[in-house]
Amino acid sequence: MAPLPPPPTIGVFDSGFGGLTVLRALLPLKTYANYIYLGDTARLPYGSKSRDTIARYAVSSAKFLHEQGAELLVVACNTATALALEDIRQALPIPVIGVVEPGAHAALNQANHTARDKSSVILSEAQNLSISSEQHPTPTTPQVLVLATQATVQSHAYTRALHALNLEAHEKACPLLVPLVEEGWIDHPVTDEVLRIYLTEALHETPNATTLLLGCTHYPLLEPAIRRTLGTLNHQLHIIDSAQATARAVASHFDNTTHSPDLTAPGCLFYATDSIEKFERLGSAFLGRPVTGVRHVDLGG
Amino acid sequence: MAPLPPPPTIGVFDSGFGGLTVLRALLPLKTYANYIYLGDTARLPYGSKSRDTIARYAVSSAKFLHEQGAELLVVACNTATALALEDIRQALPIPVIGVVEPGAHAALNQANHTARDKSSVILSEAQNLSISSEQHPTPTTPQVLVLATQATVQSHAYTRALHALNLEAHEKACPLLVPLVEEGWIDHPVTDEVLRIYLTEALHETPNATTLLLGCTHYPLLEPAIRRTLGTLNHQLHIIDSAQATARAVASHFDNTTHSPDLTAPGCLFYATDSIEKFERLGSAFLGRPVTGVRHVDLGG
Repeated sequence: MAPLPPPPTIGVFDSGFGGLTVLRALLPLKTYANYIYLGDTARLPYGSKSRDTIARYAVSSAKFLHEQGAELLVVACNTATALALEDIRQALPIPVIGVVEPGAHAALNQANHTARDKSSVILSEAQNLSISSEQHPTPTTPQVLVLATQATVQSHAYTRALHALNLEAHEKACPLLVPLVEEGWIDHPVTDEVLRIYLTEALHETPNATTLLLGCTHYPLLEPAIRRTLGTLNHQLHIIDSAQATARAVASHFDNTTHSPDLTAPGCLFYATDSIEKFERLGSAFLGRPVTGVRHVDLGG
Repeated sequence: MAPLPPPPTIGVFDSGFGGLTVLRALLPLKTYANYIYLGDTARLPYGSKSRDTIARYAVSSAKFLHEQGAELLVVACNTATALALEDIRQALPIPVIGVVEPGAHAALNQANHTARDKSSVILSEAQNLSISSEQHPTPTTPQVLVLATQATVQSHAYTRALHALNLEAHEKACPLLVPLVEEGWIDHPVTDEVLRIYLTEALHETPNATTLLLGCTHYPLLEPAIRRTLGTLNHQLHIIDSAQATARAVASHFDNTTHSPDLTAPGCLFYATDSIEKFERLGSAFLGRPVTGVRHVDLGG
């Protein structure tokens, strides 16, 4: 039997801890790999800054991971993907996968699934009422509600990606959600109230939305709170998590290669541009397992 | 009559917009001056970062203002004062005034004032009850409650400054207040609820506090909400605003000089390391008047 090729090295980067939700989704999907994660914590958050500043930070972070041996880069940060994906692709000679396109495609799959369900209901109702198929109501374009940071919303990256898939998009900036997650108020009445305000405002604009896309890697930690809040608003939405969708896109990138699954746990190396101690402490909540051995790196600034 | 000397150039710096509350308090006190303000918005917030990172950012910001002609530097940022005042003083050949010491001294003045009021009440009660002055209850050390960012609290700079003045201190980190101010939720039930939670926790630790020190330059915008919340908690505290105290310290620095008051408005030049447009928009709320003509400066990072 031919020896296995060496496992690929996958670089994953975010402005902070949120991208660990992408790594968390990736680990069980692509076990035969080495991972290098960079949290650019000295310069976070990207979400409230300008395009030029975000692009400068993101490109230097991406170059660092390439220098460390990454053969594929995952931009596990919605803001950096939305504002700097092209800058990063031009700066690196390796494949770069962002979180926006996988999220948009997952929304499309969900919308098609919902439409099939609806059309079978309509067909069965039509058969019952003896209405010919030509008279079926024309299905409206599915609406996707995107929750994201200020900078991601202002870039309209999700709107462009969803429009390209013939989906309607409404983007809602939710600046308080990241600070609430970082305060640890995941399951807290204040967070529920903030979500109620944001979701009520957003659903007022898009009452026919069927899909909710979590356009920030911090938000998966709020998924139970979001479901609870939608329940109190009597509004059901299919929730799409860009982190999960991105992990699937990365795993499928390797589908045609010869890498075999490995029974050992994948290797993870962590870098942070600010405090190692804080990264280890907060990071564990996002990764869902202990984050240890974090190394400090100074990228300037 | 001898011609007036040229007005002094005062540099004021903060990680973002909050320091504009110090400039706002300074403008009417020291009109015969030119001001240069730097908001290091590309690297904000400092409050959640490590000492080394904050010191590096603060020193480069301070050096920039000195290069622009500042003859006195105001570190209008609690986090930078708490963690990097000595680094800045060592890096610059000009006087440097931070916000912590003026805030602590204002708390002492308030405590002495309260103690005088109390002792006159005790004295009059003693006279009514014919108790001799030797039997008066010993006054306890005044307790000061300090609200601040995570980094300021962890530095314990306020505790050291207050202890040096024989005041007891209890510091409470309030990580959500800056994001709430920046979301514009100054007068909002969610902010009142967050304040209720933070203040209840803090007052549980220091039930005898008489003074509340606002240890972050964003917090003066929440003063009405803080007063309202203390009212609902049936707890009266004297509120000390470090911004006001710092402005008085800067103005008194020039008291012995020959500068005369000027009838013209002082000149203000603004620099920001991130988006000019955002600085002009958000800055106006903190300065209480339009912020225009902001220039961009790249300090690296």
